[in-house]
Amino acid sequence: MSHNTFGHLFRVTTWGESHGPALGCVVDGCPPGLSLTAEDIQVFLDQRRPGQGKFVTQRQEPDAVRILSGVFEDERTGGPITTGTPISLMIENVDPRSRDYSEIARAYRPGHADYTYDAKYGVRDYRGGGRSSARETAARVAAGAVARKVLPGVSIRAAVVQIGPHAIDRSRFDWDQRTENPFWAPDAGIVEVWESHLEQVRKAGSSTGAIIEVEATGVPAGWGAPLYGKLDAELAAALMSINAAKGVEIGDGFASAALSGEANADEMRMGPEGPVFLSNHAGGILGGISSGQPVTARIAFKPTSSILTLRQSVNADGEEIDLRTKGRHDPCVGIRAVPVVEAMTACVLADAFLRHRGQAG
Amino acid sequence: MSHNTFGHLFRVTTWGESHGPALGCVVDGCPPGLSLTAEDIQVFLDQRRPGQGKFVTQRQEPDAVRILSGVFEDERTGGPITTGTPISLMIENVDPRSRDYSEIARAYRPGHADYTYDAKYGVRDYRGGGRSSARETAARVAAGAVARKVLPGVSIRAAVVQIGPHAIDRSRFDWDQRTENPFWAPDAGIVEVWESHLEQVRKAGSSTGAIIEVEATGVPAGWGAPLYGKLDAELAAALMSINAAKGVEIGDGFASAALSGEANADEMRMGPEGPVFLSNHAGGILGGISSGQPVTARIAFKPTSSILTLRQSVNADGEEIDLRTKGRHDPCVGIRAVPVVEAMTACVLADAFLRHRGQAG
Amino acid sequence: MSHNTFGHLFRVTTWGESHGPALGCVVDGCPPGLSLTAEDIQVFLDQRRPGQGKFVTQRQEPDAVRILSGVFEDERTGGPITTGTPISLMIENVDPRSRDYSEIARAYRPGHADYTYDAKYGVRDYRGGGRSSARETAARVAAGAVARKVLPGVSIRAAVVQIGPHAIDRSRFDWDQRTENPFWAPDAGIVEVWESHLEQVRKAGSSTGAIIEVEATGVPAGWGAPLYGKLDAELAAALMSINAAKGVEIGDGFASAALSGEANADEMRMGPEGPVFLSNHAGGILGGISSGQPVTARIAFKPTSSILTLRQSVNADGEEIDLRTKGRHDPCVGIRAVPVVEAMTACVLADAFLRHRGQAG
Amino acid sequence: MSHNTFGHLFRVTTWGESHGPALGCVVDGCPPGLSLTAEDIQVFLDQRRPGQGKFVTQRQEPDAVRILSGVFEDERTGGPITTGTPISLMIENVDPRSRDYSEIARAYRPGHADYTYDAKYGVRDYRGGGRSSARETAARVAAGAVARKVLPGVSIRAAVVQIGPHAIDRSRFDWDQRTENPFWAPDAGIVEVWESHLEQVRKAGSSTGAIIEVEATGVPAGWGAPLYGKLDAELAAALMSINAAKGVEIGDGFASAALSGEANADEMRMGPEGPVFLSNHAGGILGGISSGQPVTARIAFKPTSSILTLRQSVNADGEEIDLRTKGRHDPCVGIRAVPVVEAMTACVLADAFLRHRGQAG
Repeated sequence: MSHNTFGHLFRVTTWGESHGPALGCVVDGCPPGLSLTAEDIQVFLDQRRPGQGKFVTQRQEPDAVRILSGVFEDERTGGPITTGTPISLMIENVDPRSRDYSEIARAYRPGHADYTYDAKYGVRDYRGGGRSSARETAARVAAGAVARKVLPGVSIRAAVVQIGPHAIDRSRFDWDQRTENPFWAPDAGIVEVWESHLEQVRKAGSSTGAIIEVEATGVPAGWGAPLYGKLDAELAAALMSINAAKGVEIGDGFASAALSGEANADEMRMGPEGPVFLSNHAGGILGGISSGQPVTARIAFKPTSSILTLRQSVNADGEEIDLRTKGRHDPCVGIRAVPVVEAMTACVLADAFLRHRGQAG
Repeated sequence: MSHNTFGHLFRVTTWGESHGPALGCVVDGCPPGLSLTAEDIQVFLDQRRPGQGKFVTQRQEPDAVRILSGVFEDERTGGPITTGTPISLMIENVDPRSRDYSEIARAYRPGHADYTYDAKYGVRDYRGGGRSSARETAARVAAGAVARKVLPGVSIRAAVVQIGPHAIDRSRFDWDQRTENPFWAPDAGIVEVWESHLEQVRKAGSSTGAIIEVEATGVPAGWGAPLYGKLDAELAAALMSINAAKGVEIGDGFASAALSGEANADEMRMGPEGPVFLSNHAGGILGGISSGQPVTARIAFKPTSSILTLRQSVNADGEEIDLRTKGRHDPCVGIRAVPVVEAMTACVLADAFLRHRGQAG
Repeated sequence: MSHNTFGHLFRVTTWGESHGPALGCVVDGCPPGLSLTAEDIQVFLDQRRPGQGKFVTQRQEPDAVRILSGVFEDERTGGPITTGTPISLMIENVDPRSRDYSEIARAYRPGHADYTYDAKYGVRDYRGGGRSSARETAARVAAGAVARKVLPGVSIRAAVVQIGPHAIDRSRFDWDQRTENPFWAPDAGIVEVWESHLEQVRKAGSSTGAIIEVEATGVPAGWGAPLYGKLDAELAAALMSINAAKGVEIGDGFASAALSGEANADEMRMGPEGPVFLSNHAGGILGGISSGQPVTARIAFKPTSSILTLRQSVNADGEEIDLRTKGRHDPCVGIRAVPVVEAMTACVLADAFLRHRGQAG
Repeated sequence: MSHNTFGHLFRVTTWGESHGPALGCVVDGCPPGLSLTAEDIQVFLDQRRPGQGKFVTQRQEPDAVRILSGVFEDERTGGPITTGTPISLMIENVDPRSRDYSEIARAYRPGHADYTYDAKYGVRDYRGGGRSSARETAARVAAGAVARKVLPGVSIRAAVVQIGPHAIDRSRFDWDQRTENPFWAPDAGIVEVWESHLEQVRKAGSSTGAIIEVEATGVPAGWGAPLYGKLDAELAAALMSINAAKGVEIGDGFASAALSGEANADEMRMGPEGPVFLSNHAGGILGGISSGQPVTARIAFKPTSSILTLRQSVNADGEEIDLRTKGRHDPCVGIRAVPVVEAMTACVLADAFLRHRGQAG
């Protein structure tokens, strides 16, 4: 992982600013022969797309993706397949409304990257957060759609398990519920609670954090490359690189610190097709290598930094200011991060799969 | 990060198994002209060294490091300085006692990487966990000592803030306390609680988890390379790659999910030397770039997987077995992970520093 | 260097096929604050552009570049400057004429990558060579224009020193001549010879090879990172990766094999500003590090593989065929490679400069 | 390729100085299950070993390699096999004689890296050239022996085809001859010529250059990863990184510049097992991907820079000096570079093989 590229054999390079003409990514290292259309990608972009409800930003972006390279007609089916060459994906910015941001060109919004980008680079595209905007995650979602093609038999899905102080009731956890509500909640009972909480937050011009849980099933034992390419280390980096992420845990994560060795042990028995585990405290990863169990992780997102309440800050001229962040913002960035979390997980797994295929066995 | 190397400009490659003749690392990319002796490294290795108390493994290893390359006499002082060429560090294994492990050559110990290494590689050095042993962290600590040399003005320190279910009282947090007890506890009041808990765990042949907190002060604003080389993403990967780590959080981490935007905002004012923050929920990183505040992280460690209680498992022959893990083990690996956490943090920061110097400004 | 990305701190990822909708590159790691407009890049693209004379392909491509990200208005001048974020450059394909290629969809043209791409990937975009087309070098030239911005004080220029069997007379070598003729010849006396040779080649539907020489002046002593990032090794890889390149030499190159140690030694004396060399057999690089002398290299290009003469070959169906390659081709690809050679040299030097700034001193 | 590591999936990191306690390498990414003993490596080190004849340095080094990690007993055979973990190889320096070099501690020997290392790092281990010494190539040869294990069916061999101005007669080229003389000459008729030339050179305290040719047979079609990981680009970098290398060419190389398209075309016909080529001007690589033909390259080595003849130079104090380089030197470094060329070729091919296995198909 370095700068604007991540992955080793399945490599994704993203580019673009919130209010530039476009954003996109180059996916390099995708194996040849995989069927890939713009529609395959669009379905995931549509899940992340803004302007789709009252609890997400009202910015209107179709997020229509174009495939500029890397696919060609299959000589048998005539349909587009990957060729093994880099896949360039582009999404044009349609509704940037740059004038919204002009008054904060020199202000450092608390919680945003304004001050640190200035400290590092001495210049920044302040329109909508520029490169640090969550809008960049559209490119990740596009790359993730390609990664899923590389992973036959692997199923990746994420859900929101906490918004603000309100966690789901795990006894009611049901993956099928997550597409039945606007919050990706796997617990029908929490929906009303979150709706009420978010309504309150939105009216107050405030914001709230969230926790997302992701699960990948169908990952065979053996993926991951110890020691510094451990599957959990790669996942941690990929997930922590998402905007507003502040924590990542695998399996039982922080809760495992409180466990005894007996309670934490995932015991094994023989099943009809080989070893089976009797529990999954480890989150499907042992010694940095997948164990064949579902790979599970949780990611904490801080509340959206853009709020209407006045906050103390300073500006690039060294003046103290009081600042409220107007504009079109998600009161809870965690919700729209669900397809992003899935996408990053898919990319990490696709990379691990290709590396494993190259190196071991 | 890939396989057994981590870092971009400050690169560390480690090698060695628990019961092989030696282990070590090659530190590549260290700038020239830094004073470096074996003693500079040994002081940190001695902090991690086993056999130093009743709550850590009784394996006796001097962990004496040799510098095999990369330093030469300073023509002015005559003392050894780095030359910019790779620094090879080696630690011989003195007390492996390989016979302790022969009976588990084909058994898959729950929680260990036995099964996954076999699934990946089809062969493994089962003696003491081989490559997956925490003994490898000696090489990380050695590398970290070099990294600290690269970071003038940066101070890195870690402490244990929870053992099993017993967290410290944060109102009593005092960094000076951490060297006054065998647990790296920054809270004098918790020592007796932990001692009693660990005594109980040890007698039961059980184990317990822990949480470590690390803080780096003196990091200027501007380090870190968005988007996929974000400082927090690099830290997450480096810390998650430590044996038994199951979670990483930056700043308020998972707790920030429950906060409102107002509560989470780190407001700013002007101080005598520039902008100052009034709080540090962000843990010193905004948009993946250091803000000039202390960089803070917490890492969760699962309980040691080696316990004396019988656990159900299987072996390489597909037989179901009941297994207890004898041998010399730490009842709480978290304690000895403190210098490792510091070392990984130092390596990540040294790398970020060099990259920043190369690229921005 | 890996796959479609090259460079370490100054990293270029290219994408696109000859007959796809567009091609381009992402330049990552460019330092902030450098003035950069599309015109700055276009001037170099215009040098490489096809359709500009009777000895180059008649394909009509404006090669108009768009900057899609990574620049923003300088708050002082208002002009566009780099921001330190990835610079995405795109060039649309305007005149592909795909139908020209349909009859060779399954044929393996001798000297082309048709057979090997099929062997590797099992699928290829056969239109105009797809990804293996020299059209991709437009992206390199665009990246090189950015690289030059990173290198204040460094001047890079290349010339053709041999076409077919006809080498220039080195006693007449004059850099100023190279822009005075359509062949980048630094020797006015050779122009007529080459013109006549190329006319003959063109009429015969044949092709011819070439040798290019490149020189970078203003490179200070100290760039390059031994041992495997040696400046000459990086140059060799970058230059050998250009389409049709078959050889690279630094300084005296192959001729140095025939020299005695005395003849090859670049002796040194003190000049007014430090050490000076009395000769430059080494081509400005010693031990993989720049010496402060001009960095010089030569690159051999094979003749264009597309010729009208019938050649024996096979096709994807395993049938033996006789094949002539129609279409619009350069009789000597070496000529249009001049700006590409300069661009690759610029990219390697920009990368070496940033790495040196990060790591040494 | 970067700094002291090369390769992507098959990665080699070398360390060590000419007169330090030891040198070595870490080979990471070697697949598991390959039989590997110290003897497997030693046989190649013995080919490179100094002190074996009057035309190579008289330094006496047994170059005995130790395997410190990465192998373990095969449970079936009991013999050592690779485990997929990093293989650490160490060679102790036995006969450094550091006092030979003390008088040139501050002198810049023409053709050596003394001046450039000082310019870059401000400090250098001047004893025997320190890190820039060809002694480091022992680590490459050791790594190459491991690489060969990864390449079943591939045979790699190199020969010296020119020493000073004396090239072999290609009509007499016979690979079997190369082990029948001390010069790796594939032409029995040239041996006497070279012997006489080298005797003259040695007596004069002079030195001479050489050209080595390497061939890898058994490489299937499909290895290599365009565009910037082209097999020829990777080879060029690897071979150019060898001490004293000044040029690399693939297939016909520089000679192909003088050819017509017809002469250069490697025509194809169908053979019993698929397409066959009627010639190999391309050197087995088309579009950066292996074609199934033998991969061939040539590397030019400059004359040894250490000569007894007085040369003009300067020292670190800015004084002009006259310098002769005493010590134990090879009059022609090219000869002992033969196993190094083979080793680098093996490493590049092993890496290409693993990448191909991971990514394509």
